[in-house]
Amino acid sequence: LDHSTLPFLPMPHRILVVPVDGSHWVNMELLLRELHARGHSLTVLRSAKSWYIPQNSSIYTSINGHMLEDESDKNFYNELLQRIMKHRKLPSFIRSFRQQFEITSMLRMGHQICCRAAAKMFDDPVFMKKLQDAKYDLMLTDPGLPIGLLLGSYLQLPMVFNVRWINSGESHFTMAPSPVSYVPVSGTELEDQMDFLERTKNLLHYLYSAFEQYAIINPAYSDLLQRHFPPGADLLSIQQSADVWLVRADFVFEFPRPTMPNVFYIGGFQCRKAQALPAELEAFMQSSGEHGVVVMSLGTIISALPRDMMEAIAAAFAQLPQKVVWKFLGQRPSSLGNNTLLVDWLPQTDLLGHPKTRAFVAHGGTNGLYEAIYYGVPVLGLPLLFDQFDNLVRLKARGAARVVEASSLTTENFLEALKDILNNPSYQDNMQRLSRLHRDRPVSPMGTAIFWIEYVIRNKGAAHLRAVAYDLPWYTYHSLDVVALLMVLSGALLWASVSVCSLLCCRRFRKKTKVE
Amino acid sequence: LDHSTLPFLPMPHRILVVPVDGSHWVNMELLLRELHARGHSLTVLRSAKSWYIPQNSSIYTSINGHMLEDESDKNFYNELLQRIMKHRKLPSFIRSFRQQFEITSMLRMGHQICCRAAAKMFDDPVFMKKLQDAKYDLMLTDPGLPIGLLLGSYLQLPMVFNVRWINSGESHFTMAPSPVSYVPVSGTELEDQMDFLERTKNLLHYLYSAFEQYAIINPAYSDLLQRHFPPGADLLSIQQSADVWLVRADFVFEFPRPTMPNVFYIGGFQCRKAQALPAELEAFMQSSGEHGVVVMSLGTIISALPRDMMEAIAAAFAQLPQKVVWKFLGQRPSSLGNNTLLVDWLPQTDLLGHPKTRAFVAHGGTNGLYEAIYYGVPVLGLPLLFDQFDNLVRLKARGAARVVEASSLTTENFLEALKDILNNPSYQDNMQRLSRLHRDRPVSPMGTAIFWIEYVIRNKGAAHLRAVAYDLPWYTYHSLDVVALLMVLSGALLWASVSVCSLLCCRRFRKKTKVE
Repeated sequence: LDHSTLPFLPMPHRILVVPVDGSHWVNMELLLRELHARGHSLTVLRSAKSWYIPQNSSIYTSINGHMLEDESDKNFYNELLQRIMKHRKLPSFIRSFRQQFEITSMLRMGHQICCRAAAKMFDDPVFMKKLQDAKYDLMLTDPGLPIGLLLGSYLQLPMVFNVRWINSGESHFTMAPSPVSYVPVSGTELEDQMDFLERTKNLLHYLYSAFEQYAIINPAYSDLLQRHFPPGADLLSIQQSADVWLVRADFVFEFPRPTMPNVFYIGGFQCRKAQALPAELEAFMQSSGEHGVVVMSLGTIISALPRDMMEAIAAAFAQLPQKVVWKFLGQRPSSLGNNTLLVDWLPQTDLLGHPKTRAFVAHGGTNGLYEAIYYGVPVLGLPLLFDQFDNLVRLKARGAARVVEASSLTTENFLEALKDILNNPSYQDNMQRLSRLHRDRPVSPMGTAIFWIEYVIRNKGAAHLRAVAYDLPWYTYHSLDVVALLMVLSGALLWASVSVCSLLCCRRFRKKTKVE
Repeated sequence: LDHSTLPFLPMPHRILVVPVDGSHWVNMELLLRELHARGHSLTVLRSAKSWYIPQNSSIYTSINGHMLEDESDKNFYNELLQRIMKHRKLPSFIRSFRQQFEITSMLRMGHQICCRAAAKMFDDPVFMKKLQDAKYDLMLTDPGLPIGLLLGSYLQLPMVFNVRWINSGESHFTMAPSPVSYVPVSGTELEDQMDFLERTKNLLHYLYSAFEQYAIINPAYSDLLQRHFPPGADLLSIQQSADVWLVRADFVFEFPRPTMPNVFYIGGFQCRKAQALPAELEAFMQSSGEHGVVVMSLGTIISALPRDMMEAIAAAFAQLPQKVVWKFLGQRPSSLGNNTLLVDWLPQTDLLGHPKTRAFVAHGGTNGLYEAIYYGVPVLGLPLLFDQFDNLVRLKARGAARVVEASSLTTENFLEALKDILNNPSYQDNMQRLSRLHRDRPVSPMGTAIFWIEYVIRNKGAAHLRAVAYDLPWYTYHSLDVVALLMVLSGALLWASVSVCSLLCCRRFRKKTKVE
């Protein structure tokens, strides 16, 4: 069932959208396209220096606000990649911690910039008045960066999150019980089945991410919150006040874990029927014959890999009977074969949906992997940053991917893994099973997203789906006060009974001695 | 969206159904009707002495097996009611425990009968061979009594539960994290917002229900499991092996709480557009004029209330300007007014859906309350047994019901509460808001049920939605082993540093003294 069958709302509504730039924008825009088609009026808050979000659009009005992009640039990610690649050679137990420290320093900086940007808006009464007077019906935001949720909370708008990751970790940790015995913390590269050592690692990561939340992220915003919010407000509780979480996940891919009634899963919502390719590209695809085509793309934020790695990959591709389409920026590798087409942009979903496509060489970003799942194309993963390592662990655990480490990549190991993906039918079989399961749901992911966004608008929130858990202090949530009382009471009871017993024994003993 | 829009499965499938008799059968039958209409072949396992489940049906084939009803009769519930009503006069903190003890003795007896019944089937190789040879595609069962799930597990069938309560408690406690700080244990009559004393009560109830599970229910089946199942099998882990849980709940009614990816909510799935009433009843409804009608029904298992209570209720009804339709068994009350129609059966959903209906006097069974929510009719609750107290606490918390205690019912307090429901518009407003929210979902509850049943059939299970949590021992689940290790390590570290420090200090001190 598709969202096209949903009844339209009686009147269009005004939605304020605060997206996250970069790859997050790619699928937020598709969602906005659908909302626009359903007659809603959309306003997008962006940075004047935005990387991807156009100022002029036929589907939304934009407002220039202050965002992360004001003070940072994409080049930053290339530098981060250099540092991460060094850590990849460490033993796996230490590596994930070392990487996390790297992320922490990035988080600290990022949140400081975010907070400065937010403060510029909050401290500008004219700007805030304009937002207030616009009387929006909904805040739709990606809480990966918190500017949208701060504004939404301040303007007292019903809030819907389009979310994958939040702050230091996976969005679920913020709102659903997440036993660390089988829910891997993000960044650990662990599966849901863990041995003792892995569970120890997971718990340590969990403690560290709690430290990050309370010692680094929350304090970054405390000044701003003190000045503009009611006393006691903190970033975590504002996140937990969202009406509905649209999580870009699907349990075909994600390990099953507890969830909450106001969480809905829209993983792969950007996927749609593949469109025809440009004529030239189509001709190239057809020229591959029975061998088919390998598609390679490393996403949007990393513009160039180290030169020697490019050469090794190009040399491996040259040895394949398949043809290759490679989204490539930078200097043309000298080892490039005739079978490889370099392009600076590619229609990724249409290529993955093409019947000639046999494998997808990918960095493991969420968007690309859901597209691979949707079209049933097995993946050779080359993870570089952030959640890409964790994402590929999941796909590998399902027998639908292999992973090559960028830090130790050679022509030989890359070629061996790619040939395995291409020639061993189990990868394709597993991926097509995932694809069938992913598509087998009563409402499409996009339909789910549209339905719950409009649900929150027409019911002016969804308070009845929000657990009271979020309003409890941690010791109450874990019933520690009650347990303490019960322990004191049973201690007292034990003491009293021992006292009475010993008193009785004593008397009896005395009596006995008297008698004797 | 309705299940009528779901595509049909390519071929009909064989479903083995093990229902629970009584009110649970009422809505299971409606589900079977839909499954039959979609072409599935249904086999229902029932007791030859079944209370409600007919042997001959146009929608299913029946097999006579051994069930609870073989050795117990419905009269038992009337006796239980007498005992429960005595406890209702106790202070509320103690009352729920006293009631739970009553339930425990009933549970012990019930599970012993169930186990004997199951053993008769498991020990009959001809019967079991017949079930095995039938090669069913699915076990659809209500796990309120465990015969179906034992058979399903033994026959290694994919399993779908149609469930409200399980064993000693709410079904969620078996499969989802349930922090006792805000998830009330069944039988406590608590809300999700609790003060310290209530949280203490809730924790004690939780401990008691764990005791019930491990000391009373699990052992009842240990012999049977030892003889027919692999070593180590216990009832709880067999319950947790279900592929999909269709829970008869909706968060419009239920307090929001953690849930799991293989749980889907079908509360109110039996509700449908009201049909025309029989002519005579319709004429009675119309004769009520502007005042409308009060509908009263106390469900299926309690056949008669104490005589004085009946008289008090009849006398209260007689003083109303409304007309009353009362599902009544027993001797006609002498105080009965002209406005009251006694019937021995009533078309409950059609009456609740009638525009003249103003209020519903109900015992608070799950079916009736979801029908009241569906049609937006406010409720005067007269809870008698089991979950009825808890159910009405939920509806009362939403301002859509009042509750009168059967044990202290008088004409005056019953009339006051009923007039309040009829004359104070807030009850109707709140109920209609619940009704709007309940109906506002992308797929109807019945559509959800049908979809996930067929999902499990076509995918031969839903293992990828089942968390690994269920396979972990409790100390691993709670990471107690890892915490113990970390505490030992940090203790050792502390000891080592203290030792080194004191050693250094000592030396320094000695040196000093030497020098001196």
